[in-house]
Amino acid sequence: MNDTILTAAKETSAAAAGAKSDPTRYANAIRALAMDAVEKAKSGHPGMPMGMADVATVLFQRFMKFDASRPDWPDRDRFVLSAGHGSMLLYALLYLLGYPGMGRKELENFRQLGSPTAGHPEYGHAAGIETTTGPLGQGLATAVGMAIAERLSAARFGDDLVDHFTYVIAGDGCLMEGVSHEAIDLAGHLKLSKLILFWDDNSISIDGPTSLATSTDQIARFAAAGWHVAHVDGHDSEAVAQAIAAAQADPRPSLVGCRTLIGYGAPTKQGKESCHGAPLGAAEIDAAREALVWPHAPFELPDDVLEAWRAAGRRGAKAREAWEARRDASSKGAAFDAFMKADVAAQVAGPLAEFRATLAAEKPKVATRKSSEMALGVINAATQATIGGSADLTHSNFTITKGMGEVAPDDFSGRYIHYGVREFGMAAAMNGVALHGGFAPYGGTFLVFSDYARGAIRLSALMGLRVIYVLTHDSIGLGEDGPTHQPVEHLAALRAMPNLNVFRPADAIETAECWELALASRHTPSVVSLSRQNLPTLERPIGENLSAKGAYVLREAAGKRDVTLLATGSEVEIALAAADILDTQGLKAAVVSMPCWELFEAQSEAYRAEILGGAPRVAVEAAVRLGWDRWIGDRGAFIGMSGFGASGPAGELFKHFGVTAEAVAEAARTLVKA
Amino acid sequence: MNDTILTAAKETSAAAAGAKSDPTRYANAIRALAMDAVEKAKSGHPGMPMGMADVATVLFQRFMKFDASRPDWPDRDRFVLSAGHGSMLLYALLYLLGYPGMGRKELENFRQLGSPTAGHPEYGHAAGIETTTGPLGQGLATAVGMAIAERLSAARFGDDLVDHFTYVIAGDGCLMEGVSHEAIDLAGHLKLSKLILFWDDNSISIDGPTSLATSTDQIARFAAAGWHVAHVDGHDSEAVAQAIAAAQADPRPSLVGCRTLIGYGAPTKQGKESCHGAPLGAAEIDAAREALVWPHAPFELPDDVLEAWRAAGRRGAKAREAWEARRDASSKGAAFDAFMKADVAAQVAGPLAEFRATLAAEKPKVATRKSSEMALGVINAATQATIGGSADLTHSNFTITKGMGEVAPDDFSGRYIHYGVREFGMAAAMNGVALHGGFAPYGGTFLVFSDYARGAIRLSALMGLRVIYVLTHDSIGLGEDGPTHQPVEHLAALRAMPNLNVFRPADAIETAECWELALASRHTPSVVSLSRQNLPTLERPIGENLSAKGAYVLREAAGKRDVTLLATGSEVEIALAAADILDTQGLKAAVVSMPCWELFEAQSEAYRAEILGGAPRVAVEAAVRLGWDRWIGDRGAFIGMSGFGASGPAGELFKHFGVTAEAVAEAARTLVKA
Repeated sequence: MNDTILTAAKETSAAAAGAKSDPTRYANAIRALAMDAVEKAKSGHPGMPMGMADVATVLFQRFMKFDASRPDWPDRDRFVLSAGHGSMLLYALLYLLGYPGMGRKELENFRQLGSPTAGHPEYGHAAGIETTTGPLGQGLATAVGMAIAERLSAARFGDDLVDHFTYVIAGDGCLMEGVSHEAIDLAGHLKLSKLILFWDDNSISIDGPTSLATSTDQIARFAAAGWHVAHVDGHDSEAVAQAIAAAQADPRPSLVGCRTLIGYGAPTKQGKESCHGAPLGAAEIDAAREALVWPHAPFELPDDVLEAWRAAGRRGAKAREAWEARRDASSKGAAFDAFMKADVAAQVAGPLAEFRATLAAEKPKVATRKSSEMALGVINAATQATIGGSADLTHSNFTITKGMGEVAPDDFSGRYIHYGVREFGMAAAMNGVALHGGFAPYGGTFLVFSDYARGAIRLSALMGLRVIYVLTHDSIGLGEDGPTHQPVEHLAALRAMPNLNVFRPADAIETAECWELALASRHTPSVVSLSRQNLPTLERPIGENLSAKGAYVLREAAGKRDVTLLATGSEVEIALAAADILDTQGLKAAVVSMPCWELFEAQSEAYRAEILGGAPRVAVEAAVRLGWDRWIGDRGAFIGMSGFGASGPAGELFKHFGVTAEAVAEAARTLVKA
Repeated sequence: MNDTILTAAKETSAAAAGAKSDPTRYANAIRALAMDAVEKAKSGHPGMPMGMADVATVLFQRFMKFDASRPDWPDRDRFVLSAGHGSMLLYALLYLLGYPGMGRKELENFRQLGSPTAGHPEYGHAAGIETTTGPLGQGLATAVGMAIAERLSAARFGDDLVDHFTYVIAGDGCLMEGVSHEAIDLAGHLKLSKLILFWDDNSISIDGPTSLATSTDQIARFAAAGWHVAHVDGHDSEAVAQAIAAAQADPRPSLVGCRTLIGYGAPTKQGKESCHGAPLGAAEIDAAREALVWPHAPFELPDDVLEAWRAAGRRGAKAREAWEARRDASSKGAAFDAFMKADVAAQVAGPLAEFRATLAAEKPKVATRKSSEMALGVINAATQATIGGSADLTHSNFTITKGMGEVAPDDFSGRYIHYGVREFGMAAAMNGVALHGGFAPYGGTFLVFSDYARGAIRLSALMGLRVIYVLTHDSIGLGEDGPTHQPVEHLAALRAMPNLNVFRPADAIETAECWELALASRHTPSVVSLSRQNLPTLERPIGENLSAKGAYVLREAAGKRDVTLLATGSEVEIALAAADILDTQGLKAAVVSMPCWELFEAQSEAYRAEILGGAPRVAVEAAVRLGWDRWIGDRGAFIGMSGFGASGPAGELFKHFGVTAEAVAEAARTLVKA
């Protein structure tokens, strides 16, 4: 195939130079910008943008519904560059189409500090970047979430207000990653007919030909997952256009396999891994200019080409205006606007405050996963924004509440998604749901399996999305399932991640508080770490959300502190028992509950000093020590885990590993004596 | 289908009670032990063992090559219970077959602290448990590694010494997990014909019917990945047997889809999610005993049934003896034994010591990823145990060395594996290679993508396997690729994991030292964290492996220390420059390199105190602070990252984020003044 394309390339481009409307010429603008920007940056990936330029041109000039002047139009089609290393394809498109904030200067500053044209597309850096991509496979999995959100929104507000496609470009790498399987299966199952995936089938990976590592028949694979499939020459614009039209009409999600030549137009490097991730070099670029019949200086474009692209950028303005008119005329228009802008925190604040008062009165002794279910009952009644789900652990995570309704392939009126045994896919889909707008997604699995989802949790944090991870069975307290299911290092590993709030509530009241804080964190994802085992409701002052400052004195010492005991979650009960023991021994202990280190860290030094106190400190957490030295200091002690857990009844395990009130009291006595 | 099976169940069992050799009766022994053990433990998963008992009976009584009295026979078939929650299937089999250490008492102590019969199968707890399973999908992915190791071994020592199958039982959950895709693709590509996967096709997941979350045609999916496929009634022993025979004969890996009834034999719960993960209850168990015509007390077996099983356990003794005879007669027998027992650390020690001396003389200024390649050149020449690879980043990770030879579908003589863009699958496969014996696998990706592989890294640590993760591009020092590719929290997240050595060498010599230590750690996996950017070879005493104690004084202060600077990896150079600045200002700074916190933690308190010193300490690492307070103490300061990185040239990023010698010196001055 390569030879044919090689021969055809120059002929097509030459013809295009004459016939000004030929799409190849518009595509060549993308190619030139990509190779020039990478060359100037001295790093980057020219191969993919050059290979997929023709497909992108057809898509954006003829199919995508958008208005470049209004990138926030809610009913725009979404475009996700899952093969994020090809970022210059996206930046070139945004510039050519006239998106605000993406000028020639930004392209010339590709990959420079402070420029929106980062090495990989970063959400929030420029209008038109719908999600951060780069970690392979995740763009596709995030797009599944966007397509789910589109269906959820349409079910609520009608097809006349919500009716748009989600387009994705993915490469061989994306399709090798495991998360692609989770995404493809879920999309096929849910019949996400408005999800259209272009596979850049260029047979090249970084190490060399894809035949080094994969032999899968991708077309058959997608068909097995319930997708509509097509396979076309990615440099044949009409074939691509026909495939898109067929994909739009099909009731299934669609794969359009696009056979392409990576680096199309670079005479000696095209079709080879050498053009994937490095500048082409001046000589090759000169030769490519000749081959593509593109006699223009770097970053310069013929007026007619730029104008044609800018016209494409304006093409959707009428559709956008028509949509606005429909919205203004619709009985659901105001509700739609309100939904997209809703202040979820305000919606739930009153009911949750009332709920906390009830808890303080009734003092339930339940697992915090159960407390979470109770809080969710209040939350899901107070707001329509929440979309719940679980990776096939619904009745362990307690993530469903009465009357939510379950999402099914032909019914998106519900609010609960059975994500299947797909932690990573669930997390990435939640990112997509959050990015789409309006919704506040939460999803459950066991804390230990946050490992499986970590790649997507990181993108929640990096993008600053309100995604809430409900992670239950959060210590050896889960008991018999044993060390494969018992997290010991996961709290530390999650606390290490920037812009992620890790909540570990100690009882029902803190659980409600943490949920309130998580929903109020519009630009920070949250982990809510919950126990399998029952915990008592603790005594404390009623009213204020005490978790809001991250840590607080749950029980002050009766007099000057001899020692301060620090704990989180299920171990707060242990710290209180230790304080009781110490009391009988004449030592005055304060107990500090620390449901969220990140929020505590954000308080003033004075507040932190007041809470932690000047007395020696003992921390207790059924997890590894890493990170605790920040709070216990040089004179401190830590009671917790130093290795993996074991299979056995929870009570025996706490004794076996020495995570007990007696051990805490003993450590405190030793410190005070020292 | 369920109805037919329901009716057939009692008839078959009744017939079996008469016709004593009927396999259903042997399978019923598994069913009874599973339901009784779960009942006694008051927790566990009876449904899967009861559903797959017939398949397991056919497999172990008629096909598996093993000798229960010699579970370490190298040429035994491997069996992996990927659906690890069904652990009672495996424990029942090991007991019935007469494996050492698995008696009735162990079954009665299912899920009790200290018993080898943990909630999920734990490698090392009992003979016959080939790998730890439970985190879904990973058993399958680990089995792919075992099957690769079988082919690697056969290519080296011949089919007469190495010729065994790897059998896997996986459930719907395993096949929904993304890692299953990576494993299936890799196995199909490499034509692992001796890998045979039984899919427990029971249509039930925890939340309910699998139709809640998946619609994939699994048979078509596996066929698309190049597998031989069959689909049979999992309760029809002859059909299962025929499928196994066909699978053994096929030149591709094989899927045997087994339609089963979860909880087969439990009259009201079979076929439902209620029998998946909870005891059946006394009444249901009584009814099941009746339906299965199994009038025996809990844990009691009729003599003839037990004897038939024990005979099956002895069935392979002759094959094992024949193999031993072949080995003794083979010209490769001694080499095979030596290979399986090789002391890799001893093999590489001399050459690496010599290499370090050369480095000390030549002082190369290269990235530590390049130093790693140089060290691997020495290592791979000194031992045949190492099996390298990369997740499609070979020429970024620098993991291949001259003359290794590349593994290909029809040629396993090489030592380098192109794992494809499959970090998780690679890591799990490496676990399988290590478990199989003899080999020391290492594999590369970017440090940031350790997130994708984390589930398998955890199993390396939990099982105590010598698997080495070569994780390059280990900070903002990678530059323009930006925050999606820049690890900031990964060192902390990996340091949090028990039994994992995280090495971050500062130069070429430390890199060689860390490789030596990683290869010598037979029961601890290692991360070797490596820079993209060049680093100078530092001055230090020559000879001893200074990294062996985890941290050491690289440069002592000229006189009493005013301050101690702590650093790892690429920031050691910064610490040295800071010491120079301080020197000009009359402050005496010592510089401590800390290539491995875990090894430092394992030293005596006296050693640690000597290295850290009594002066104030400043740590510098281009990563988050979490964990550093352990070393810097209350009076300490930390220079590093407080959030995600950015896209730009590396030098600018270090300045932008303030990770500079000037910042370290300034922090030191402030501390000394305080």
